[in-house]
Amino acid sequence: MVADIYPSSSEVREVGPRDGLQNEEPISVEARINLIDALSATGLQSIEVGSFVRPDAIPAMVGTEKVLASIRRQAGVRYRVLVPNLRGAEMALNTAVDEIEVVVSVSETHNRRNLKMSVDESVEAIGAVVEAATEAGTPVEAILATSFGCPFEIEVDPAAVTALVRRLRDRGVSSFSFADTTGMAVPPSITALIDALVEIDMPADQIALHLHNTRGTGLANLVVAARHGVRRFDASIGGLGGCPFSPGATGNVPTEDVVHLLDALGATTGVDLEALIAAARSIEEVVGRQLPGQVMRSGPRDRRPEL
Amino acid sequence: MVADIYPSSSEVREVGPRDGLQNEEPISVEARINLIDALSATGLQSIEVGSFVRPDAIPAMVGTEKVLASIRRQAGVRYRVLVPNLRGAEMALNTAVDEIEVVVSVSETHNRRNLKMSVDESVEAIGAVVEAATEAGTPVEAILATSFGCPFEIEVDPAAVTALVRRLRDRGVSSFSFADTTGMAVPPSITALIDALVEIDMPADQIALHLHNTRGTGLANLVVAARHGVRRFDASIGGLGGCPFSPGATGNVPTEDVVHLLDALGATTGVDLEALIAAARSIEEVVGRQLPGQVMRSGPRDRRPEL
Repeated sequence: MVADIYPSSSEVREVGPRDGLQNEEPISVEARINLIDALSATGLQSIEVGSFVRPDAIPAMVGTEKVLASIRRQAGVRYRVLVPNLRGAEMALNTAVDEIEVVVSVSETHNRRNLKMSVDESVEAIGAVVEAATEAGTPVEAILATSFGCPFEIEVDPAAVTALVRRLRDRGVSSFSFADTTGMAVPPSITALIDALVEIDMPADQIALHLHNTRGTGLANLVVAARHGVRRFDASIGGLGGCPFSPGATGNVPTEDVVHLLDALGATTGVDLEALIAAARSIEEVVGRQLPGQVMRSGPRDRRPEL
Repeated sequence: MVADIYPSSSEVREVGPRDGLQNEEPISVEARINLIDALSATGLQSIEVGSFVRPDAIPAMVGTEKVLASIRRQAGVRYRVLVPNLRGAEMALNTAVDEIEVVVSVSETHNRRNLKMSVDESVEAIGAVVEAATEAGTPVEAILATSFGCPFEIEVDPAAVTALVRRLRDRGVSSFSFADTTGMAVPPSITALIDALVEIDMPADQIALHLHNTRGTGLANLVVAARHGVRRFDASIGGLGGCPFSPGATGNVPTEDVVHLLDALGATTGVDLEALIAAARSIEEVVGRQLPGQVMRSGPRDRRPEL
């Protein structure tokens, strides 16, 4: 039998305070700070803190600058924010943020619906953000939404993803994450995209994946990606957030489930799983609905049940 | 890159009407019949109809003989029942059942807690069932519970699983399924057990896996197993049932999520996914709680959202 080899370590990037909470009913700035402080203490190396967007567009992200000013920063943690344009980037660069994220969809239809811009316009806007951030010495990561399928166009060709990567590289972007925005990825689409990215000189260990569990395939896709050398994965504490296109459906893969699985693969995360579970339970109480995380309910595989 | 090769076809074995419903509040015999009839029409090749157990032990399974007598049998579907002992087998053999299932835990502690017998006593009891069934010309499958971990003993050595397989083979059992009873399996334990079983001359395509999603790893384990040649998987419509050891936690992998994924791997199931989704929604209404199935909520990946 062919042995299954996984990376010997991995990096889990927490997106709950931004990508998770922006799809929940708004919670207080204080609760957001508490969540981030709890996550900062778990050993996670990267936390998406919030975004600088129009308050009327995403009320849940109002006060991100207050959040950034008040969290207890831990050494070794990169605090990141999402910005939609140069104006957002300028606001972000006035804070103590470690990294800026920008987003563009591979699918033209999805980009227009989500960002009210053409892909061309998004690439221009990202170019302006990169310029400002570079001047300030702040790195930028581009999130490529709908990298594995678009709810409107359905299939997304890996060649369309790599074409967009090339255009963004020309604008100075050197860090990328590939998002399964509506949970359409399945193992063959994961391997097809990794193959295509390796072809344009992006080694698997530099790829970051943002996987959703909307159709139950999130961790299946993660294992397949890890076996092909991917070691950077986004996840949302408790599975916070949902899927804007499917009411009641699941969105981001839960951080504690991802950490539990990666550690079991030997792709050590360095994250304290029990501390994560505690954070997931706290935020579940704050948002007031049952979150989809499994390990937060069942405990890790080596915990004996209370009988 | 190493290509990912999966079996070209697979068999999904529905366990919702027994393993699912026995962990839910009892529903009427009529509702059980309706569920099985709906499942029979989807193209599934195997349905676990019920069990012949003590009515006081599992009230949800009272009336299984009535269910068997009243369902509309479809050609090409194997209707199976679980029996705990010879007395149950005799009741089952008086009905039109196609296959009998017996269960024993690899873990001594779990077997005593679950079946109130030692593993030795279970092996004896299974021997008696096999004898009676063989005389009646009815095949028997042994389900090996806790094959990937025990909630009391935690680790279960693949060598303990293969030792039990050998003992049961000596008693005339030729068909086996391996159950991740409390969702403790992770990809390395899946490959370790497949390896060990191949070593004792059980080819991967003869292995049946009964996977749980208690820690979110159900479909991840399934993909890894499929890549190693396993093509027979148990699943429960909508993810019906729970985990008796973790209140609120998930149990069986949902049938429609399994079919959606296997078809996407090219391991064609021959099952009508939309018909499965309809069955999942119906039984969700009957049991009156939100089931954990994802595809029943989000739809298959190629279905456009209603906007």
